[in-house]
Amino acid sequence: MMKPIKVAVAGATGRMGQEVVKLIQREESLVLSGATARRKKGEDAGEAIGIGKLGITLTDSLDEVLAQGPDVLVDFTTPDQVKANTERAIEAGVRPVVGTTGLTEEEIRELDELCRDKGIGGIIAPNFAIGAVLMMVFAAKASRYMPHLEIIEMHHDRKLDAPSGTAWKTAELISKEREEMKQGHPEEKETLEGARGGYRDGFRVHSVRLPGLVAHQEVLLSDAGQLLTIRHDSLNRESFMPGVKLAVEDVMNRTGLVYGLEKILDL
Amino acid sequence: MMKPIKVAVAGATGRMGQEVVKLIQREESLVLSGATARRKKGEDAGEAIGIGKLGITLTDSLDEVLAQGPDVLVDFTTPDQVKANTERAIEAGVRPVVGTTGLTEEEIRELDELCRDKGIGGIIAPNFAIGAVLMMVFAAKASRYMPHLEIIEMHHDRKLDAPSGTAWKTAELISKEREEMKQGHPEEKETLEGARGGYRDGFRVHSVRLPGLVAHQEVLLSDAGQLLTIRHDSLNRESFMPGVKLAVEDVMNRTGLVYGLEKILDL
Amino acid sequence: MMKPIKVAVAGATGRMGQEVVKLIQREESLVLSGATARRKKGEDAGEAIGIGKLGITLTDSLDEVLAQGPDVLVDFTTPDQVKANTERAIEAGVRPVVGTTGLTEEEIRELDELCRDKGIGGIIAPNFAIGAVLMMVFAAKASRYMPHLEIIEMHHDRKLDAPSGTAWKTAELISKEREEMKQGHPEEKETLEGARGGYRDGFRVHSVRLPGLVAHQEVLLSDAGQLLTIRHDSLNRESFMPGVKLAVEDVMNRTGLVYGLEKILDL
Amino acid sequence: MMKPIKVAVAGATGRMGQEVVKLIQREESLVLSGATARRKKGEDAGEAIGIGKLGITLTDSLDEVLAQGPDVLVDFTTPDQVKANTERAIEAGVRPVVGTTGLTEEEIRELDELCRDKGIGGIIAPNFAIGAVLMMVFAAKASRYMPHLEIIEMHHDRKLDAPSGTAWKTAELISKEREEMKQGHPEEKETLEGARGGYRDGFRVHSVRLPGLVAHQEVLLSDAGQLLTIRHDSLNRESFMPGVKLAVEDVMNRTGLVYGLEKILDL
Repeated sequence: MMKPIKVAVAGATGRMGQEVVKLIQREESLVLSGATARRKKGEDAGEAIGIGKLGITLTDSLDEVLAQGPDVLVDFTTPDQVKANTERAIEAGVRPVVGTTGLTEEEIRELDELCRDKGIGGIIAPNFAIGAVLMMVFAAKASRYMPHLEIIEMHHDRKLDAPSGTAWKTAELISKEREEMKQGHPEEKETLEGARGGYRDGFRVHSVRLPGLVAHQEVLLSDAGQLLTIRHDSLNRESFMPGVKLAVEDVMNRTGLVYGLEKILDL
Repeated sequence: MMKPIKVAVAGATGRMGQEVVKLIQREESLVLSGATARRKKGEDAGEAIGIGKLGITLTDSLDEVLAQGPDVLVDFTTPDQVKANTERAIEAGVRPVVGTTGLTEEEIRELDELCRDKGIGGIIAPNFAIGAVLMMVFAAKASRYMPHLEIIEMHHDRKLDAPSGTAWKTAELISKEREEMKQGHPEEKETLEGARGGYRDGFRVHSVRLPGLVAHQEVLLSDAGQLLTIRHDSLNRESFMPGVKLAVEDVMNRTGLVYGLEKILDL
Repeated sequence: MMKPIKVAVAGATGRMGQEVVKLIQREESLVLSGATARRKKGEDAGEAIGIGKLGITLTDSLDEVLAQGPDVLVDFTTPDQVKANTERAIEAGVRPVVGTTGLTEEEIRELDELCRDKGIGGIIAPNFAIGAVLMMVFAAKASRYMPHLEIIEMHHDRKLDAPSGTAWKTAELISKEREEMKQGHPEEKETLEGARGGYRDGFRVHSVRLPGLVAHQEVLLSDAGQLLTIRHDSLNRESFMPGVKLAVEDVMNRTGLVYGLEKILDL
Repeated sequence: MMKPIKVAVAGATGRMGQEVVKLIQREESLVLSGATARRKKGEDAGEAIGIGKLGITLTDSLDEVLAQGPDVLVDFTTPDQVKANTERAIEAGVRPVVGTTGLTEEEIRELDELCRDKGIGGIIAPNFAIGAVLMMVFAAKASRYMPHLEIIEMHHDRKLDAPSGTAWKTAELISKEREEMKQGHPEEKETLEGARGGYRDGFRVHSVRLPGLVAHQEVLLSDAGQLLTIRHDSLNRESFMPGVKLAVEDVMNRTGLVYGLEKILDL
């Protein structure tokens, strides 16, 4: 049997951080080596999130956690902390797996260089839901051969922005694969303003908001006589954990830092 | 065995009229008694539409057809003919089943009175697809109990108008059952104009246009923790025939003229 | 403003009972007047389920709760308690709203008579999810006009039995509306045993079991050229609460006890 | 502008052959150079299929057609003709694009060698619907990361066999990517025989047969908290033509014969 990977968690009492601690606890191939949190410091990491004693004390000092020599640091903190956390981890030879948003392209390039200097791997991903990433990658690939398409994303009605971040990201990936192409009847007209949805690079994006929904998206691609639909339904934060696990395993065998879960999937 | 119902068809060489002739030919309980057409008059009605000799000669004289004493006249002609056709049928004691659009509410009321005077039944329906009518009626009924809803209609990309007539009709039926109620987050904002679709009486309508689609609509109704979806897919004109058959049978046992296939369904 | 309805809850610390207590707390038109529980008696009902002090003490004595004069007793207890609880409620003039299963048809008839003697209303329902009930009722009604149909139910993979109770119930309602009719090609054959699903009264039932699913069902009804799909997705127990609220309000204006939420929906 | 590719069609009056002739007529980059047919020989190929004179006479002699020096031979004939046709085409230096089934793996290997000897390309594909091929390839790739899955295929009710050929092919591709893994509850039981569908390599296959359907399939893949659905709807034979066109263009730049449309897609 392989030695388990030692994982530290930054932001261990946050909504995502809690799930990561539970993941590590569940998986035999992973072991928790340290955990930071702004709240509840001094408490046991497991007790603080209601899963029983784990023997790891929450601290607000990342240095303390890095000093225990973890293999990987999983960071689900906040945009203002993530850059410093990731730099310090890499400098300490600890591979970063980052789900926190807010890093610029320039910062990501610098962190990649730092990783290469240290000869270690790292990953930053805005979305760890493997199914969502597969949906986006497949939709973009399919658009090469079926360039007529529309995106329908559906979320709970407490969401402020429309379209969703995933829809924007999907649209961006598609726009890289196909030329702008005006779809629909050239003289089509809306008898109800907005019915045809938002327009982007020739295709349409529709946002549905209803109570009872969580986070869903479908991409419809078509051609004469046929339709290909790629849909992802996300029900809760558990859906991100298989992607986090894959990333933790992946960075152990990589040099340099990559951006996006799709980079570590073999598709 | 019952005596078959004698059915005459006005507009027998049109796209819908042809399907009606085939329906009558197929069903033992129906028999074709006459057929009008502007084109191909003098030809056999069956040969004109490629299904073999039926022994009924196409004529452009409705009076000739009515004189043969049909039980029912199915009219799929044009908006400029339908009113006169229907009046003459009723006066001749022939029950009208009308799929042609263009009659005003006032005209429909007059035709209803005419039917009552003659003691016969009649029906005018903008849509004979039973499944579409069920979708609309169910969606409207459900909206009493699940008032949060959105409509997504999807059609081929040669369609000019958005939303579709069926979507407008569905919206209208729903608006009769529930109060206007602003849905979604009160401060929701579109980062891509039109993404949230068209707004009507508090709910949203989305129109998708793609090659490979025919005519589809789904109504999503929801509440905390649950979603009810009612969807209709229509692939071709055959889908209207069971509704026409039901109407032909229904008018034999009715006094007065009704508007809408839903009026003769027992739901 | 109307005086709020006084509601007592039997089984207030169970999974459904907790949701009912939260519902009552949330709704201005309802007020909690008493609560029974086997566990945690003596504690405050709100504190016991983590929503803060409500001023109602949990007791294991139903008589004590009934003595406080509630208008309605909502019972989510266990099959061994439900009959006695309901009888005692009715005798005390308290209207029963029962979600507990296990009563026989004979027992339900007796409880109905008891209600009528007392001049009060009552309801027993195996499923309070309005959307699921609408799906079943609509599917059964639609099957009169579109008798070709199949049921696909989908649940999480910890479910033991296939098909689900909802699928059985749906099948039963459909069988009341349409004659047994063998569907599919008369000589169809399975090259993989079981592929065509379970057979019942001429139609097929398919059960999907996957992690990531919760509780879903769709009924597909079709005819030449068209398809009507009625689907229900249930994500959590919150989905039952609008039905419970509707029942509590309904029994205030009813004489006699009904079985099934559909009986109090105006469809 | 590129010189158009000269395409001959074997089986030009068959259901697929007709579509291919129409495709060639429609596309400026393709030109019809010859056409074989068992029926209607001596007639003009276009007139025989109702699209007007094309100036190409139908013949039952493949040698005559090959003698005119086409670049490509598209073969939609019958299992008894396909092998000889393809050999003779390759020997004449004409690239085969074959949609006819019935060739063994051994025969395909021989044809590949023949192509390589002649320095030309070729393709044999059981399914030219690009969307269907994308669905199968994506489902197989996704199954590496989301190994819990079920297949639901849906066809018109005149289909004899269940599951469909596409479902078998999808299952085969998936079985190459993931280990056999028993899904569902270990003690799950069917209270209605067959409800859980057909079993294959640990996953389930369900076949729905209804009038109103054409040819549809969805693959559901899931993990805790998420679901990925990949669905293909095929409405008519037109859906195969973009794949045929892609194949005709591809074989012009290829050496050796490949099996399966997926081999020429860049995914």
